[in-house]
Amino acid sequence: MREGRRSNELRPVEILVDYLEQPMGSVLYSQGKTKVLCTASLEEGVPRWLRDAGRGWLTAEYSLLPASTGERTQREASAGKQKGRTVEIQRLIGRAIRSVLDFEALGERTLWLDCDVLQADGGTRCAAISGAWVAGARALGKAGLSRALPDSVAAVSLGIVDGELLLDLDYVEDSGAEVDLNLVMTGSERLVEVQATAERAPFDRDALNELLDLGAGGIAEIRAAQEAALDAAAG
Amino acid sequence: MREGRRSNELRPVEILVDYLEQPMGSVLYSQGKTKVLCTASLEEGVPRWLRDAGRGWLTAEYSLLPASTGERTQREASAGKQKGRTVEIQRLIGRAIRSVLDFEALGERTLWLDCDVLQADGGTRCAAISGAWVAGARALGKAGLSRALPDSVAAVSLGIVDGELLLDLDYVEDSGAEVDLNLVMTGSERLVEVQATAERAPFDRDALNELLDLGAGGIAEIRAAQEAALDAAAG
Amino acid sequence: MREGRRSNELRPVEILVDYLEQPMGSVLYSQGKTKVLCTASLEEGVPRWLRDAGRGWLTAEYSLLPASTGERTQREASAGKQKGRTVEIQRLIGRAIRSVLDFEALGERTLWLDCDVLQADGGTRCAAISGAWVAGARALGKAGLSRALPDSVAAVSLGIVDGELLLDLDYVEDSGAEVDLNLVMTGSERLVEVQATAERAPFDRDALNELLDLGAGGIAEIRAAQEAALDAAAG
Amino acid sequence: MREGRRSNELRPVEILVDYLEQPMGSVLYSQGKTKVLCTASLEEGVPRWLRDAGRGWLTAEYSLLPASTGERTQREASAGKQKGRTVEIQRLIGRAIRSVLDFEALGERTLWLDCDVLQADGGTRCAAISGAWVAGARALGKAGLSRALPDSVAAVSLGIVDGELLLDLDYVEDSGAEVDLNLVMTGSERLVEVQATAERAPFDRDALNELLDLGAGGIAEIRAAQEAALDAAAG
Amino acid sequence: MREGRRSNELRPVEILVDYLEQPMGSVLYSQGKTKVLCTASLEEGVPRWLRDAGRGWLTAEYSLLPASTGERTQREASAGKQKGRTVEIQRLIGRAIRSVLDFEALGERTLWLDCDVLQADGGTRCAAISGAWVAGARALGKAGLSRALPDSVAAVSLGIVDGELLLDLDYVEDSGAEVDLNLVMTGSERLVEVQATAERAPFDRDALNELLDLGAGGIAEIRAAQEAALDAAAG
Amino acid sequence: MREGRRSNELRPVEILVDYLEQPMGSVLYSQGKTKVLCTASLEEGVPRWLRDAGRGWLTAEYSLLPASTGERTQREASAGKQKGRTVEIQRLIGRAIRSVLDFEALGERTLWLDCDVLQADGGTRCAAISGAWVAGARALGKAGLSRALPDSVAAVSLGIVDGELLLDLDYVEDSGAEVDLNLVMTGSERLVEVQATAERAPFDRDALNELLDLGAGGIAEIRAAQEAALDAAAG
Repeated sequence: MREGRRSNELRPVEILVDYLEQPMGSVLYSQGKTKVLCTASLEEGVPRWLRDAGRGWLTAEYSLLPASTGERTQREASAGKQKGRTVEIQRLIGRAIRSVLDFEALGERTLWLDCDVLQADGGTRCAAISGAWVAGARALGKAGLSRALPDSVAAVSLGIVDGELLLDLDYVEDSGAEVDLNLVMTGSERLVEVQATAERAPFDRDALNELLDLGAGGIAEIRAAQEAALDAAAG
Repeated sequence: MREGRRSNELRPVEILVDYLEQPMGSVLYSQGKTKVLCTASLEEGVPRWLRDAGRGWLTAEYSLLPASTGERTQREASAGKQKGRTVEIQRLIGRAIRSVLDFEALGERTLWLDCDVLQADGGTRCAAISGAWVAGARALGKAGLSRALPDSVAAVSLGIVDGELLLDLDYVEDSGAEVDLNLVMTGSERLVEVQATAERAPFDRDALNELLDLGAGGIAEIRAAQEAALDAAAG
Repeated sequence: MREGRRSNELRPVEILVDYLEQPMGSVLYSQGKTKVLCTASLEEGVPRWLRDAGRGWLTAEYSLLPASTGERTQREASAGKQKGRTVEIQRLIGRAIRSVLDFEALGERTLWLDCDVLQADGGTRCAAISGAWVAGARALGKAGLSRALPDSVAAVSLGIVDGELLLDLDYVEDSGAEVDLNLVMTGSERLVEVQATAERAPFDRDALNELLDLGAGGIAEIRAAQEAALDAAAG
Repeated sequence: MREGRRSNELRPVEILVDYLEQPMGSVLYSQGKTKVLCTASLEEGVPRWLRDAGRGWLTAEYSLLPASTGERTQREASAGKQKGRTVEIQRLIGRAIRSVLDFEALGERTLWLDCDVLQADGGTRCAAISGAWVAGARALGKAGLSRALPDSVAAVSLGIVDGELLLDLDYVEDSGAEVDLNLVMTGSERLVEVQATAERAPFDRDALNELLDLGAGGIAEIRAAQEAALDAAAG
Repeated sequence: MREGRRSNELRPVEILVDYLEQPMGSVLYSQGKTKVLCTASLEEGVPRWLRDAGRGWLTAEYSLLPASTGERTQREASAGKQKGRTVEIQRLIGRAIRSVLDFEALGERTLWLDCDVLQADGGTRCAAISGAWVAGARALGKAGLSRALPDSVAAVSLGIVDGELLLDLDYVEDSGAEVDLNLVMTGSERLVEVQATAERAPFDRDALNELLDLGAGGIAEIRAAQEAALDAAAG
Repeated sequence: MREGRRSNELRPVEILVDYLEQPMGSVLYSQGKTKVLCTASLEEGVPRWLRDAGRGWLTAEYSLLPASTGERTQREASAGKQKGRTVEIQRLIGRAIRSVLDFEALGERTLWLDCDVLQADGGTRCAAISGAWVAGARALGKAGLSRALPDSVAAVSLGIVDGELLLDLDYVEDSGAEVDLNLVMTGSERLVEVQATAERAPFDRDALNELLDLGAGGIAEIRAAQEAALDAAAG
């Protein structure tokens, strides 16, 4: 059995909106010891391949700060390329937020979402999605473009560890998981991404269904925290 | 309604084992117009971080030949880096086959699986998984290491197109899909990867379940083709 | 003495035209165990430095698939750069085919020739030239631009092995050659490239002349195979 | 005249020690709106060229988070290389801290100092030096290696703006400066680096001397803040 | 005490103008055994970010030839990136010459200054600055744009070695210096750059002042050599 | 007809041995306006793949200085990769000199030959070969390893321009050549490389033979200059 938390219990979620003064949207998103700085920048114009289509675009980038992990990780800028894991995660973040973005309402603008992990203790990609949505919503709100984000998204990780189904894995739990699931859902409780992976042992449909039930509960709590944080910021 | 195929019908699957003479395992895997050349090479030794652990390793690589797509795609070797999509796909192929690999039985060897798409008409990552497993099994069989691959894997893509649930999307169907699902399962009918993505519209649990049912049927057919091809090759 | 072949005998040449359905021109060119997939893609427009000159351009690219060689070769896309050998070969292929191309007749279009070696057993650069010409001719024929390719080209490798002059070296012969010659000639029997290299020992003019005679014979045979394959494809 | 601050007045300095839980040393260093997260990681072993010399090493890295600047800056990891400015700054940080490090006392260990700018409003390289020293001191203190850092360093920027000599330039002042000086001094009030640059107009020895006087005063204040923060953290 | 030279004595300076025939300005600048080939090329047009501003630009590049150093140094073009030291030096050269350039008088042109070190024996960055100014002046003179360079710049290195203050360090002296100072001054005897670095031991204001006095003397001599060389070339 | 030179006349060849003091071998090789600085460095040890075989290795590198060409060429180190032409040329230089090198006599050492073109006016690859051989011979001579280079090599370019066969093309002639031939021969008058290319029009065997005759004459003259220069240097 898991230490100090029930199997369906999230780690404490804290969302500091307007953590910085310069970016249009900036959020320090913490879930347990995992801390991700999410910023949103709005630029006029879109990538070349989308020009003159009257639609906007969204790009997400993700990075682990070198000391965010227990042992220092090499800085990708000095290695000269992004790791496969980084590329995969930032593609996931982008897809997740784009699923609720109204590109026509955004107009010919690009919304950049940068997710920099200050401290990593499991679930960083999910924390990045949940935080980036708040940063994006804050930036679009300030720019009078709230209609471009008609729904919300949040994400949570789940897994099977020693046969037990657990919500919101920390690093130690994640390292030992037999199955790992990242779940992204909208505020209207629909599915955006289900990424279930057998890390050590293939699994069956029943396990998948139980994990999805467990995840839906966690996401509802995160959604409540997102809304409360945005309301407080909007004052 | 889909043209010329029932919604639960695979495109014709053809698996040519020992397509080339030099690699230990080589398979030309076709599913409709999608053709992937999968080769397996066995090397003595493992990556540095795994040395002296008495275990083997598996690495998969994936590439689209420039003319495999309708319009020519830039060659990644001349661009100087692999695209995010490529990186994501080869990580998926590797995870899929590793899920049924017995690393201890493999011993201190590295199994390289190369999946080069000669012609792309949708479903290339799933075809690569299904074909790479055959190439790997063939190479291990020749090397007297069949015990290192105790189970099989196969993959198939699914999607929702104009509200209809379809098995095995071709390129045109995939381009218009609202939801896209890549499913990897073992020969023992357990789940290895479920990657469901809302491309245009979030989806609900019922749709997910129907897609998984549809996929399980397609994977059973692919598995039969894999076994028949290996048996024929083994003579 | 060479095993199983006379010193002036080519390995069996097989040319499958329209091997794939999507590229405009696609040829699987085999010479003995060497197999090269050559595709031709025609794009509107030319590189920037040639714009508005009313002339077309041709670019060739060459790659060894990782398992094409006996021992697996690292994929250049994952290494992040093309090797010197690759660069040198693709420059040679481009020059060879450009020598018979009528750029004005091509108009402001770019002809891409991609040569991907599926299996390498010596003579891959020559096989790539002979096959790429067929792929290019097929693509231009389909596009009604046959006048842009008024002559043909073919290539063959030669060498001196243990003092004996040999036509069409396979990998083992090539590895032991004292002198190595790649010869490219047009259908009108003129020289396009002569690249003779002393691998182990400098050579004299007589040896050069004998090799060129031997090569001219081999090229005549390859030219006949190119024409027969194109005629069969054109139906 | 400068708005809201005297010409010899620093912006408010705030130093949060142990800002994160995982790195050995972590400091959030703020000077006005400039905020730099400085972390220190201690690794066993040294770079290859220093092996078996019984001495340690120190490497510093610096990065601007994309949204830290007013307009979003491209992420260096996705550009694939560090900019010249980044390289120059991280070399400066490394030299500055190495000037007070006792490599023999450190032993065969590498001290990594990572300076990630969360918000940039001028003076980021100086803030990085002042903060990195605190992070390094904290990490070495925890590791029982305080003797390896026998003195402190701090840095401050200065400049001549519209003919007026100013301490601690913010971004707007820096953009308009005729002369720009970065000063690094030890706790024992000696000079480590003097980097004076004519941005718009060459300057004379008198101006240099006045700037150095002004800087020495600012550095004394920063040193006091460094010591207070470390004392508070050590409890 | 220094061997064969007084502490305030420069190594012999030799400046060959128009060393090559093709570049607009070309100078072989020698100071002792240090030899730098400096060339100046004038191009129509400016970088994109400066377009239509009616102003010109200057870019400097610096490189060590592989055999210029005692032990061969790896070629940066084959390593695939410039080292931090190179980047830092070419930024310094660019800033130094830009400090005396009249961008409006230059007009929408780019002046490229290339400094390639043929032989390195200390002080290469200073020699590059002193030589690049001559090359630039020569090219602008030939182009009738002398008014774009209203003043001159020259540079010299200084240091404290075994407690002695020395002008113009050679490689051996530089390797053992406690303090290292690079000084750039204009023809009108004003300061452009002061870069003083404690290599082994922090230093005090008196030492800084003495080094600056010593440097001003050296720079006056270099300036005389620059003028004499340009006059001779102009005939 | 060619201006100011007979068709079988070389441009003036000048070979300055020991042009620099630091490299073991350094040669400034000029042929007309083409000037190449060739240096030779001898390192203990060989590349990893050759270790413990008791044999040496030779690596050649080639570069055009940016201003060496009429219009400035981008520096490859700042572009981040070597161009195809560079790679092809340095492979040719290496092969040419290796053809006369006795690897056993060299022992487990690596001979680096660096050819940096200071001024390019046609024939730079041939000048690099002729000069690099002298630099290598000088370095091996100083190291008491002359027996490792038992024969010499020299190279010359030839071409057909407006139907006329010409020896030693300058840049303008080369740009207009229909056929281009690079010829490398040993001191014992045997062939090392024949690289004949149809630039504008395929050619016949007679033309090839005449070019080879013309080249043999030019190479004899260059060989005489190489020997004279080495003798003078050896004093």
